Amino acid sequence: MNNFLTMDTLTNEEIQEIIKNAEQLKINAEPIYFGKQIFAANMFFENSTRTRNSFEIAQKKLGLQVINFDAETSSINKGESLYDTVKTMEALGTDLFVIRHGVDGYYNELIDSVKVPIINAGDGCGQHPTQCILDLMTIKEEFGTFEGLNVLISGDVSHSRVAHSDKIALTRLGAKVYFSGPEEFKDSSSDAINVDLDDTIENMDVVMMLRVQKERHVGKSGISEDYLSKYGLTLEREARMKKKAIIMHPAPVNRGVELDTRLVESEKSRIFKQMTNGVYARMAVIRRALD
Amino acid sequence: MNNFLTMDTLTNEEIQEIIKNAEQLKINAEPIYFGKQIFAANMFFENSTRTRNSFEIAQKKLGLQVINFDAETSSINKGESLYDTVKTMEALGTDLFVIRHGVDGYYNELIDSVKVPIINAGDGCGQHPTQCILDLMTIKEEFGTFEGLNVLISGDVSHSRVAHSDKIALTRLGAKVYFSGPEEFKDSSSDAINVDLDDTIENMDVVMMLRVQKERHVGKSGISEDYLSKYGLTLEREARMKKKAIIMHPAPVNRGVELDTRLVESEKSRIFKQMTNGVYARMAVIRRALD
Amino acid sequence: MNNFLTMDTLTNEEIQEIIKNAEQLKINAEPIYFGKQIFAANMFFENSTRTRNSFEIAQKKLGLQVINFDAETSSINKGESLYDTVKTMEALGTDLFVIRHGVDGYYNELIDSVKVPIINAGDGCGQHPTQCILDLMTIKEEFGTFEGLNVLISGDVSHSRVAHSDKIALTRLGAKVYFSGPEEFKDSSSDAINVDLDDTIENMDVVMMLRVQKERHVGKSGISEDYLSKYGLTLEREARMKKKAIIMHPAPVNRGVELDTRLVESEKSRIFKQMTNGVYARMAVIRRALD
Repeated sequence: MNNFLTMDTLTNEEIQEIIKNAEQLKINAEPIYFGKQIFAANMFFENSTRTRNSFEIAQKKLGLQVINFDAETSSINKGESLYDTVKTMEALGTDLFVIRHGVDGYYNELIDSVKVPIINAGDGCGQHPTQCILDLMTIKEEFGTFEGLNVLISGDVSHSRVAHSDKIALTRLGAKVYFSGPEEFKDSSSDAINVDLDDTIENMDVVMMLRVQKERHVGKSGISEDYLSKYGLTLEREARMKKKAIIMHPAPVNRGVELDTRLVESEKSRIFKQMTNGVYARMAVIRRALD
Repeated sequence: MNNFLTMDTLTNEEIQEIIKNAEQLKINAEPIYFGKQIFAANMFFENSTRTRNSFEIAQKKLGLQVINFDAETSSINKGESLYDTVKTMEALGTDLFVIRHGVDGYYNELIDSVKVPIINAGDGCGQHPTQCILDLMTIKEEFGTFEGLNVLISGDVSHSRVAHSDKIALTRLGAKVYFSGPEEFKDSSSDAINVDLDDTIENMDVVMMLRVQKERHVGKSGISEDYLSKYGLTLEREARMKKKAIIMHPAPVNRGVELDTRLVESEKSRIFKQMTNGVYARMAVIRRALD
Repeated sequence: MNNFLTMDTLTNEEIQEIIKNAEQLKINAEPIYFGKQIFAANMFFENSTRTRNSFEIAQKKLGLQVINFDAETSSINKGESLYDTVKTMEALGTDLFVIRHGVDGYYNELIDSVKVPIINAGDGCGQHPTQCILDLMTIKEEFGTFEGLNVLISGDVSHSRVAHSDKIALTRLGAKVYFSGPEEFKDSSSDAINVDLDDTIENMDVVMMLRVQKERHVGKSGISEDYLSKYGLTLEREARMKKKAIIMHPAPVNRGVELDTRLVESEKSRIFKQMTNGVYARMAVIRRALD
């Protein structure tokens, strides 16, 4: 049984192995023969389009039985806790959990007691490790390696579980990760390399723009109108990028905020390719969890 | 790749072919062997019972993998547009879209860029072409032909996508379509034949009552209490219908408003038969889309 | 065709037969070969985690096609009645209904007209017969028989459909059923044996705590802080239970209200085992309905 909770707990070899499996699944995505029905429960307590649907498609491609737990019509509304809800789904025969929840490290109260694997589909402002795998897969598909790459992650770094997961993994795999963005969104950890977007963009191989997470800033003032010109990827900045550099974004994109709307589907953009890769990345993670 | 968006863009031969296929599927509804999994994404941005569930059943009868996109828990809530959402689902591996959306012609911004077929399950006050096919199928099952039939469509004609689609198709296939109903719901197009219900009911082969769409009239005064006696199908009016004439309604019915509640499941009524036919009509449309 | 609506209408032999089938399915839960697709529609108009998901898992284990009717995005929002909604789903090809609804005996208006089986997944303050079957199965697994067992059902007896169903079935199968709990939640039927928890707990084989259904007491004062000490299963009371006695609860549990939180997963507790058995109990009920 293999939980998949954070990037920290994986060795470099394990990460490379998962990416390799995802690449192979992209070439040939056959259902696995398990010899019996395997039930995967998808439990999303936060909104999601990409992660939720790509897990469901990944599960169906693997031949799993999918239970889409509907939090809104569940006994959560009668006050049932996450712990009791997950233990209930386990008692009903769930073989694999995919959980997104707003609380950082929500899985800590579960892992000692739940006897089947849990895949973290995003915890609060913690991590988003399957997004990390698909980001790594997309970067490797482009450059063949992580060694020596310069990766700029720009935007609301402090609240981004994608940034946390990607920084850990990319650094360990040999890339150099830089952060940029508004002062109030800065990563304050001691090893963070905070740079100015305009000073560094010409040297970057990957420019990953992060979503301004409006829903995490309720009550604060809205996105400033000059966010794009100050911190975003304008056409002017894009023109200064290396010829082979790529643009990434975990999506959903606020078009015209994090990047010029014309760049979303531009030649350098790998934004939709990231989504496609996400299905295979999740298939690889699920296979590992069920191994 | 065959989108299925409006009735206007189909030839008479294509319409007849789809009806014929639906009739055959009603006799023998075997799954198709595609040689690989085919993913259908159902994206309903408006409430639906019949259309949504009959598409899902049709897809499962054809052996498709069904993804029920849940708008309420999606990134639509983070401000993601319809365009980006559909492009996302395409990137995840969707092979076929079924979309209902409140905006007339919502598909226009999609069709150039989305590379897999889109089936329109209703656009605003635009069209509802799969409802049209099931209506045609039900009428043909009854009369064997459309030539020379008198069809009365009665009620809120101006807001009805069913009326728009049915009028186009029935007229081209040789039937004569009449409209009746309250003055404020009148079809104002130049070729509309607006008649008085009481003057014409004796000559009609099909009497199709339209739903008073309360949810499209928010803020207006409610349905008048004498709607049934003034514009609806009362027992008295039904008694004046031709012996072989039939009653249709796209449902949901407001019982006691558009027609006397005792007529819903009466001998002349084909209302539930329309629903049954809808499954086969949609199977035929899906098969054509995937051809 | 076999509806499954209340415990009253089943003979003792039928109940024993369903339990036996459930026990066999627990050992070997193979899909049934029906020779064609069978569509089960799950229509839950009240919140549910256990019942809803265990029906879905039971159906998938039996190889059925599952349609999860989504009340929140259905035409119920356009005012369509339960009757018309169920008749619609039948017209679309539903072979089996599983319905939970807030109105006592909601099925009475359906059964004459719906031609496929209906399984009652809970009606208002009426019955919850599949919960009863899983309770019986769990008790029989423990004691091998119902004859001579003392069963205490404690808590909000008057509003509990579980209590109603269990009392009927257990009494007829030879057990003696006692009720305890707050005065205002008392069962007022003439044959109810109302006792004091502290006077009787030492003689009970089964202590079934009922959930305080906060959502059925809207507008009333909240649960009193001394509910546990007055009416609940404290550690002290549990210590006085027979050595082989068991604790049951239909869940969701209000931890610290109906029972001490440490008892939920304690040695005597069968609460999660009840959930596991629920899947097999429902498989047996579904098989009987489709026979």
